[in-house]
Amino acid sequence: MSSTADAATRTNAGQELADRFERVRKASEGLIAPLSPEDCIVQSMDDASPAKWHLAHTSWFFETLVLEREEKGYVHFSPEFRVLYNSYYNSIGKQHPRPERGLITRPPLEEVLEYRRHVDQRIPQLLRGLGDEAERLRPIIEVGLNHEQQHQELMLTDIKHLLSCNPLRPAYSDELPQSADPIENDSAWIDYPEGLYWIGHEGSGFAYDNETPRHRRFLEAFQLASLPVRNGEFLEFMNDGGYSRPEFWLSDGWARIQQEGWQAPFYWEKQEGVWFEFTLGGLVNLNPEAPVCHLSFFEADAYARWAGARLPSEVEWEVAAEPVSLAGNFVETGHLHPQPSQWESAGSPVQMLGDVWEWTRSSYEVYPKYQRPEGPLGEYNAKFACSQYVLRGGSCATPISHIRKTYRNFFPPDARWQFSGLRLARDLL
Amino acid sequence: MSSTADAATRTNAGQELADRFERVRKASEGLIAPLSPEDCIVQSMDDASPAKWHLAHTSWFFETLVLEREEKGYVHFSPEFRVLYNSYYNSIGKQHPRPERGLITRPPLEEVLEYRRHVDQRIPQLLRGLGDEAERLRPIIEVGLNHEQQHQELMLTDIKHLLSCNPLRPAYSDELPQSADPIENDSAWIDYPEGLYWIGHEGSGFAYDNETPRHRRFLEAFQLASLPVRNGEFLEFMNDGGYSRPEFWLSDGWARIQQEGWQAPFYWEKQEGVWFEFTLGGLVNLNPEAPVCHLSFFEADAYARWAGARLPSEVEWEVAAEPVSLAGNFVETGHLHPQPSQWESAGSPVQMLGDVWEWTRSSYEVYPKYQRPEGPLGEYNAKFACSQYVLRGGSCATPISHIRKTYRNFFPPDARWQFSGLRLARDLL
Amino acid sequence: MSSTADAATRTNAGQELADRFERVRKASEGLIAPLSPEDCIVQSMDDASPAKWHLAHTSWFFETLVLEREEKGYVHFSPEFRVLYNSYYNSIGKQHPRPERGLITRPPLEEVLEYRRHVDQRIPQLLRGLGDEAERLRPIIEVGLNHEQQHQELMLTDIKHLLSCNPLRPAYSDELPQSADPIENDSAWIDYPEGLYWIGHEGSGFAYDNETPRHRRFLEAFQLASLPVRNGEFLEFMNDGGYSRPEFWLSDGWARIQQEGWQAPFYWEKQEGVWFEFTLGGLVNLNPEAPVCHLSFFEADAYARWAGARLPSEVEWEVAAEPVSLAGNFVETGHLHPQPSQWESAGSPVQMLGDVWEWTRSSYEVYPKYQRPEGPLGEYNAKFACSQYVLRGGSCATPISHIRKTYRNFFPPDARWQFSGLRLARDLL
Amino acid sequence: MSSTADAATRTNAGQELADRFERVRKASEGLIAPLSPEDCIVQSMDDASPAKWHLAHTSWFFETLVLEREEKGYVHFSPEFRVLYNSYYNSIGKQHPRPERGLITRPPLEEVLEYRRHVDQRIPQLLRGLGDEAERLRPIIEVGLNHEQQHQELMLTDIKHLLSCNPLRPAYSDELPQSADPIENDSAWIDYPEGLYWIGHEGSGFAYDNETPRHRRFLEAFQLASLPVRNGEFLEFMNDGGYSRPEFWLSDGWARIQQEGWQAPFYWEKQEGVWFEFTLGGLVNLNPEAPVCHLSFFEADAYARWAGARLPSEVEWEVAAEPVSLAGNFVETGHLHPQPSQWESAGSPVQMLGDVWEWTRSSYEVYPKYQRPEGPLGEYNAKFACSQYVLRGGSCATPISHIRKTYRNFFPPDARWQFSGLRLARDLL
Repeated sequence: MSSTADAATRTNAGQELADRFERVRKASEGLIAPLSPEDCIVQSMDDASPAKWHLAHTSWFFETLVLEREEKGYVHFSPEFRVLYNSYYNSIGKQHPRPERGLITRPPLEEVLEYRRHVDQRIPQLLRGLGDEAERLRPIIEVGLNHEQQHQELMLTDIKHLLSCNPLRPAYSDELPQSADPIENDSAWIDYPEGLYWIGHEGSGFAYDNETPRHRRFLEAFQLASLPVRNGEFLEFMNDGGYSRPEFWLSDGWARIQQEGWQAPFYWEKQEGVWFEFTLGGLVNLNPEAPVCHLSFFEADAYARWAGARLPSEVEWEVAAEPVSLAGNFVETGHLHPQPSQWESAGSPVQMLGDVWEWTRSSYEVYPKYQRPEGPLGEYNAKFACSQYVLRGGSCATPISHIRKTYRNFFPPDARWQFSGLRLARDLL
Repeated sequence: MSSTADAATRTNAGQELADRFERVRKASEGLIAPLSPEDCIVQSMDDASPAKWHLAHTSWFFETLVLEREEKGYVHFSPEFRVLYNSYYNSIGKQHPRPERGLITRPPLEEVLEYRRHVDQRIPQLLRGLGDEAERLRPIIEVGLNHEQQHQELMLTDIKHLLSCNPLRPAYSDELPQSADPIENDSAWIDYPEGLYWIGHEGSGFAYDNETPRHRRFLEAFQLASLPVRNGEFLEFMNDGGYSRPEFWLSDGWARIQQEGWQAPFYWEKQEGVWFEFTLGGLVNLNPEAPVCHLSFFEADAYARWAGARLPSEVEWEVAAEPVSLAGNFVETGHLHPQPSQWESAGSPVQMLGDVWEWTRSSYEVYPKYQRPEGPLGEYNAKFACSQYVLRGGSCATPISHIRKTYRNFFPPDARWQFSGLRLARDLL
Repeated sequence: MSSTADAATRTNAGQELADRFERVRKASEGLIAPLSPEDCIVQSMDDASPAKWHLAHTSWFFETLVLEREEKGYVHFSPEFRVLYNSYYNSIGKQHPRPERGLITRPPLEEVLEYRRHVDQRIPQLLRGLGDEAERLRPIIEVGLNHEQQHQELMLTDIKHLLSCNPLRPAYSDELPQSADPIENDSAWIDYPEGLYWIGHEGSGFAYDNETPRHRRFLEAFQLASLPVRNGEFLEFMNDGGYSRPEFWLSDGWARIQQEGWQAPFYWEKQEGVWFEFTLGGLVNLNPEAPVCHLSFFEADAYARWAGARLPSEVEWEVAAEPVSLAGNFVETGHLHPQPSQWESAGSPVQMLGDVWEWTRSSYEVYPKYQRPEGPLGEYNAKFACSQYVLRGGSCATPISHIRKTYRNFFPPDARWQFSGLRLARDLL
Repeated sequence: MSSTADAATRTNAGQELADRFERVRKASEGLIAPLSPEDCIVQSMDDASPAKWHLAHTSWFFETLVLEREEKGYVHFSPEFRVLYNSYYNSIGKQHPRPERGLITRPPLEEVLEYRRHVDQRIPQLLRGLGDEAERLRPIIEVGLNHEQQHQELMLTDIKHLLSCNPLRPAYSDELPQSADPIENDSAWIDYPEGLYWIGHEGSGFAYDNETPRHRRFLEAFQLASLPVRNGEFLEFMNDGGYSRPEFWLSDGWARIQQEGWQAPFYWEKQEGVWFEFTLGGLVNLNPEAPVCHLSFFEADAYARWAGARLPSEVEWEVAAEPVSLAGNFVETGHLHPQPSQWESAGSPVQMLGDVWEWTRSSYEVYPKYQRPEGPLGEYNAKFACSQYVLRGGSCATPISHIRKTYRNFFPPDARWQFSGLRLARDLL
């Protein structure tokens, strides 16, 4: 990269970030292609947000954290958006209440798309104008793009929830491809010795603050299953009275399933004795070979106890993931649903990345010696470190460029609308 | 009806009903002209319904109660609609839950409009085909059209509520005309002697079942105010501590205003010491001469007590309304908001019809010797005769052809999102 | 009354009121004889109050409305009681929150009984000291004693509710007498002609403000059943699917029974196919001849519709009650439960007084030309005239000296813990 | 201990356990000495239980887990108690619902005390009869006694909550002794090096299953404060806007304080500008030198962040506690409230044991290689390992013989009614 010739052809920092920006932003809009403006405005539960809100909020992120600070005399696209599309950043100011995001029928979707174009024109212009000086904006641009990708996954899970509330059970898309039969059927136990291990993000690539600092943890010897738990296996748990035997459940979990009447994973429905599953492709027959998903932490934990095993800790998971390939069923495959395994295990776990987020037994906490970033980004992750559990590995709705083996997703133990499944672990005695 | 010449020119029953049908149905669709599909799908509270739902449900009414019974081998536009757009008719079958009407993004608005066209083509065809024999369908067609008109008013009040939830305070229409200054400023007391009066609907014209049978009631002598209470008068109540003095309030009302923090009529907001009112034309300065509206029964009752008066009973109201003109500020004037009086009182009350529904002190009950209709229409009114209060006279959102002096509207005592105001009465001692 | 001899022996006003005061007050304390201090403190639901609270509040009434005003330099038994035992009198001052009455373990029951003795010593002393001048205190003393009697009935219904929450189903008393078989089994219809009737309290005897003024009402011809509905009849309704057929129910009632899972009157329980009823004497076999009780207005109304009849209006009830005897199963009989009829009807209704309060179809409203009393007594009745329904006739838990034919009791339509039943009426066509 | 002479005088296992049983059981009853039966029955919130329930449930524990299994042909004191006083043991059977414990006025307190005597007579008789063979019952007897001691602490915190709900603010006891001025005022930082540490219970003495197995954890270097945070320090946080600045709070904590309007620790009240604290000795002036208590995890965490520090992990806490003395302000001192420090720090932390439970940052989870006990005791601890946080060290309401340095208490992050405070930690950078 040192010769003049190289300099002429190589991509400078601004150019590279701008290109990446354009790719990621375009992907968000691609997701609403099968949706009507009506689909994009409705909020089907407090935890979900309208697609239009996702599109606006991700633009708000770039406008507020980049344009507002970098463009001299910047004029806001619409001054009210600063409050309207702020999610939870107290350091930036007031926020429109989360459960009322679905009431904002105006601005219409078209205006939000215009808002996106407004941002999409300025950010690349800014970055390309800065050339290699754009390097100083790399941290915030990279957070912004990863933030956008998180919302891409949420757009899919939120729209899935909305469509599931409709008794007509409409599909997001009628043309989702299905995988072939699985390469490998039986899960095997893989051994890991006790020891002091390093986990957490290392090096210069992008990672969220909550993946740092890299640090040591002592682990007892353990085993991890080569495959995630599949629908057929979960059915055995159900047929063995899994949902009606308190001995498998955490106390909170038992209370919750009683209260809500849960009898199966979310989105499963039985019609005339046959199990179906609501997917982004509509209602389909349950595939016993596909990884089970839409489980709460409570259900994952109960299944593991029934199976004579337990959930892995996030440290165990990360240690086990170290040698495995990143390839997997991510959003780019277009399945938008977990698929039977297409990989051979050969002594190491498969399907750790993609398909389903895997619940761990680990409560979400910041790492030892964690330093909270200054400014709004300090609110990104750390303030949620309470009463949530860590999930690892990404899902069929995650962009592949978004995932890392050190990536820590987290949700409350009763959340079911994400693509969340599990993989078994047990002590090596 | 006997001469041939007459027969040639006169309108037969089918023709007449079909023409009326087309006018009323068209008016419903006119109401969504200023709205986007997004505006038409969102349900802003359990009591309100999406505009799209109103459009579909009113069509469901004609499909289910007319086409399904009259058209031989009738094929439903969409069989699922039978449940999806049933409001509360247990005798017809299951219903999609009311609080989840806003989750039905599909069918899209366009398909609901097609559903309307499907119905709008068949009903007039059926009626015109029957000619004078359509007379036997007159009862159900007239209920259907009045039902449609009720939903026209609800579409306006529901959309107003939705828009009010948006911090941008968007207007339904920017071009609502304003009235001139009022003709008459001061309310006067008009006397009515004690006596046995007839109330209730009489004759062959259309009326709902709950307006019948016509029957006698004994009234003590009373007085009624010539004008409804106006904003300026209500402000005096507020300035006199109206919302913080329990002595004016029913016990339930006092509990409610404490719990909800009510300090003014719904849709009023104070900015830098000045009162504004959210209207279908957006946020406007409060007009002290216009009738106060968006009051709950509790607020109307408390105001009356503060004023040394009381609410009229519905019998008193109907007796007083007997001689007055039907002219008034109805939906056709286009104001979509109560206006200062443009009529001279001259010894009888004015503005009894139109502008604001007037709360009465009367709990909504069926009349003596009331007979519940057979079939689904038996569920139309009578089953709601509990814990609701009667309002009379129609409002600025009511079609003029929908109102009658015997018309009984009813809402729970804490409802505020209708155009509801009051007129004072007192005992003649 | 004019001779000297008479004067020597006759009872003066103070003497007479003091005697009555002592009798009524003593009866309240008699009610807790079978109860422990533990039984007397617990509040089993928001609508019920602890027995200790009833004992204290009724004393507070006399202390605050009589002693505080009449005794010069009166020193309160305990200044904090003024707030602690105020029920709902805003004109007197703040109130301890109703749902927290059961948290006041101190003062202990013994201190509340001492509070009663404090009041019970001073009031008779005051009255007797005034002699005939006590006449001016008659209104407030009479309200106070009637108030105390209302709370006597509530003590019984509230303690019944508390005991019913205990899975051991303990009895208030094990020695309640049972009635003989009924004199008369079959209810007959009694006719009443249309006409203008007077209702409401007349004369100089005590009545609550809400029974006045006496006034005229026009009634259509109607029929009233000679007997209240009995358990056996209500079972027929249940066996005919009464609780699962929406056509019999008001919309609010249907929603309520779905929500609460009501399948039978309150306090009924089925064990191995046999119906039992929880009573103040414990769990007993359901007596098919006894009047059904612990019905909500919704259930009474649904039963009547199923039976092809309706509830009477309170005006009809009062007109029909005019000629009947006051004798009945009141608290003094000691049954503490409705009993089979021991009276012959002979062309007029029986059991109108005592046994069960009879729901009417009448929403509770103040009478025409009603005048609210000045001061705290203005809060006694009128401010509750909203969303409640009138019951007439008293019950097996009412003191006989408390009841009148013009007496208006009222409860919300879902209340079930009072001794509430019904009598059928229908239009005379 | 092997000589015959020794054998003659030494205490055998049965004797020793029986003596201990009698001491612990007697202590429970000592706690209700200042209480009336009324105080003992009321349940002031769902999380708290009536004192009578505590007395019965702890007896149920011995009856169900010892007598029922060990006494041949055992006849239950009252068969219904098996359900009535089961807390949460699904493996034993049904349970009376927790929020309804306060409705059980019968059996009366006296009968529950008789139930205790029934158990208190049989258990020692059984143990002494077995002599050294009682060793096999040691595990269950020791769990039972520790269980009883946990409920002793809960009796005090629950009764404190009940009394605090009474506007009269009655004291549990008027004669609680107060400590002298503190020995040491200023907290110092104590350093701990990074390393692999052992934590968890070791050896043959009693511990709960959740303190095992002893295992290794890697720690980064850290500092711990020599003293717990005191009231005066917490007031500085409050005066610096602690409760109104979101930057100090976890997201859930911020939401909670908004929703509940928390402005100070639980039981603090300000009267005319002066801070008071409700204690078991009634309302007293806030002592700035005493450790702050009745904090939720949220408040402890926010204070720490404001102070530029953090909460310690439970591993850090246990490592630091290793060398310190067990002496402290436990229930036996009779203060029943945290006191100013009476110990000199001299380079190691003081007041780690007693005074206040110290919140740690650690979510409550089972230890690596934890084995759940068979049978009902498997439900004792492990099923609650979700959404709770660990507290360490015991409090002024804990019996000293109950505490261990490895002891793990746990409560949800919003719990405030325990004697819960904090000690600061920070990273050693």
